[in-house]
Amino acid sequence: MSDDRVLLSHGAGGKRSSELIESIFLKYFNDPVLLELNDMAVLDLPHGRVSMSTDTYVIDPLFFPGGDIGSLAVHGTVNDVAMAGAVPFAISAGFILEEGLPFEVLERIAASMAVAAVEAGVRIVTADTKVVPRGAVDKLFINTTGIGIIPRGVNVRGSLAEEGDRVLISGTIGDHGIAIASSRDGIAFETTVESDSAPLSGMINELISALGQDIHVLRDPTRGGLATVLCEIASQSTVGIRIEETSIPVRDAVKGACELLGYEPLYLANEGKLVAVAAPEAAERALEIMKLSKYGKDACIIGEITGENPGKVILKTAMGGSRLVDKLSGEMLPRIC
Amino acid sequence: MSDDRVLLSHGAGGKRSSELIESIFLKYFNDPVLLELNDMAVLDLPHGRVSMSTDTYVIDPLFFPGGDIGSLAVHGTVNDVAMAGAVPFAISAGFILEEGLPFEVLERIAASMAVAAVEAGVRIVTADTKVVPRGAVDKLFINTTGIGIIPRGVNVRGSLAEEGDRVLISGTIGDHGIAIASSRDGIAFETTVESDSAPLSGMINELISALGQDIHVLRDPTRGGLATVLCEIASQSTVGIRIEETSIPVRDAVKGACELLGYEPLYLANEGKLVAVAAPEAAERALEIMKLSKYGKDACIIGEITGENPGKVILKTAMGGSRLVDKLSGEMLPRIC
Repeated sequence: MSDDRVLLSHGAGGKRSSELIESIFLKYFNDPVLLELNDMAVLDLPHGRVSMSTDTYVIDPLFFPGGDIGSLAVHGTVNDVAMAGAVPFAISAGFILEEGLPFEVLERIAASMAVAAVEAGVRIVTADTKVVPRGAVDKLFINTTGIGIIPRGVNVRGSLAEEGDRVLISGTIGDHGIAIASSRDGIAFETTVESDSAPLSGMINELISALGQDIHVLRDPTRGGLATVLCEIASQSTVGIRIEETSIPVRDAVKGACELLGYEPLYLANEGKLVAVAAPEAAERALEIMKLSKYGKDACIIGEITGENPGKVILKTAMGGSRLVDKLSGEMLPRIC
Repeated sequence: MSDDRVLLSHGAGGKRSSELIESIFLKYFNDPVLLELNDMAVLDLPHGRVSMSTDTYVIDPLFFPGGDIGSLAVHGTVNDVAMAGAVPFAISAGFILEEGLPFEVLERIAASMAVAAVEAGVRIVTADTKVVPRGAVDKLFINTTGIGIIPRGVNVRGSLAEEGDRVLISGTIGDHGIAIASSRDGIAFETTVESDSAPLSGMINELISALGQDIHVLRDPTRGGLATVLCEIASQSTVGIRIEETSIPVRDAVKGACELLGYEPLYLANEGKLVAVAAPEAAERALEIMKLSKYGKDACIIGEITGENPGKVILKTAMGGSRLVDKLSGEMLPRIC
C-alpha cells in the first residue's frame, strides 16, 4: 500500500491522523473555530430558536453529473436546516473512509465541500474521521449535521398548511434521481441529465424576508420524491392536497429516462428543490421570488390545499381524471443520497 | 429475506421508512421535537455560547463488555461536547444500516441509546437512517452530533494550560481498549475487562460549578489514549507536561492484557475518562469532586504543567528515569470507537 492512499493508521487518532487532517482537510476547511483543533467547536450563536438537522450521505457513485458526495453533503443538510425558515449557521462533517481510498479522491471531495459551504453561507466548524478496514465500508460516507438560526416570528412547519393555501415547487422534478440512475451501470441517454444538487438557503431567506408568516410549510422533496413529501404534509396538517399533473415541471430528458427505466417522476429524489405552501394572497409573490433566484427559474404553482380528503393527495391528470397519490412504497434507487 | 430484517426499502424514504421509524425508533426516542417528524428539530436553546461536536461510531463488535455502539455513540459525543465546559443539550443520530441487519439488533441499540441519553441528560432531537446494500457497510454505523451550552464566564480549552497547573485523570486508563481487544477474535483473560464507556457531563458540571475558571483544560483521552491527548495539550498551550508513571491508575487486568498483547496503556482508548488541567490551588478540590462522582472514584493527580520543554510530555518512570512521550504513531486497534 502506497502513501497516496488512506491507511488504517490515518484513523487511529495519533500522528498519522494529524497528518491526514493537516494535509487534506485543513487545506480546504479553514474556519477559525475548526483550526483550534479541539474535539468540539465553540460558537457564538446569534439569538433565536435553533434548527438542527442530520443526514448521512452514502451516494454511489461519489462523483456524478452535477455534483459529488461532498457538495451534496453540504447542500442536503443546509437545505434541511433551512426548511424550518432558518438561516444555516454551521455544519459538522463526519467522514468514514475505507482503507485504501486514494487521497486524490478525498481531496477533491473536501475541496468540493469547502466551495459548497461558501456558497451556502455556512461554516464547517468541527469534523471527525474514521478509517475502517477494506470491505467494512464502500469507499467513503459522510455525515453532516447542521444548525441554523430561525428569525424571531418565523414559524414554518409541516403542520401549518391551511385550506386555500397554494402549493409551489421551485423547479423541475426528478433531475437528481435520473442523474444518479444514468451514471450507474453505464446507462447513457442522448442528453445528460445533471443533478439539481444546490443550496436553497438563499431562496428561503428571500421568501421568509418578504413574506414572513405567509409561508406556512417548506420541505425539500429528497428521498421519496414530491409525492411522498406532499403525503407527509397532508398528514401532518390534516388537510387534502390537490395538484395538477400538467403544472408540474419535468424536463423532457427526465420524462424520456423515466419511460425507459420505468420510473415515476413524482417519486424521484431531488436535491435542489423545495415545496412551499403559501397563503393564497402571497402565492404569486412567492412564485416571483423563486423565479428570481438562481435555483428557482422553473418554479411553478402546482396545486392547493383543500378541506376535502384530509391526509390525502389527489393528482388531477393530464387526461382530466383524478387519482390518489400515495407515499413511495418499496424501494426506488438505493444509495441515491 | 424475511420481515424481521432491514430491507433496502426501509431506507427509501417512503412507507417502509415510516414503518421502520415508527416500529423501532419512536418506541425509544420520544422527544416531543423529534416526534414532530420534520426533517429538522426546532430548539429553544438557553442563552450562551454553544459547543458542537461530531463523531461517527464504527466499533466492532457492536456489543462488548460494558456497552454497545448505541450507548458509546451517546457517551462519546456528550463527552466531547462537555469538554468545552458545556452542559450537553441535544444530539442528532444518523444511522447507516446494512441490508439484512436483524431488527432485533437495531432495537437493542436504539433502546441502549435512549437509556444512555437519559442518564447523560441529553435529548435525541433529530435522526436520519440510510440503508445500503449488503457489503457496502459492516452491519451498522452511527453518527451522533451534539450541541451544548457553555455557561457564562466558563472558558475551558486546550490552549489554556499554565505553568504550575496540575494534571488530573478521572480514573483507570485503557479499560475500553482492552475490553474491545479481548472481545474480538475470542481472546479471553481470567478477568473480563469492561469498557469504561460513560457520560462525564455530570462530573464536568460539578467541576465547573465549583471551580469555574480554575479549570483550564478538559479533554477525553479516546483514540490515541492519554499520551496523545497530553501531547496535544502541550502543543496547543506551548507548555511542557511532566507526569509520574506510578501515579497513573491502571487496572491489574489491563496491565496483564497489555503485557500479553504488546500494548502500552498510555496509548489505549478510553471512553469514560477525562484529563483535567487545573490551577494548583484548585487541584485537590478538583480531585475530591472527581472522586465523589460515580465515574471518578479512581481519579488521581498524575503530573503538572512545566515551563521546560514546551510542546513535550515527559514521563518520570517507575524506575526513576525520564522518557519523552510521543503521540501514537501507527495504528493501534482499528474500529475501537
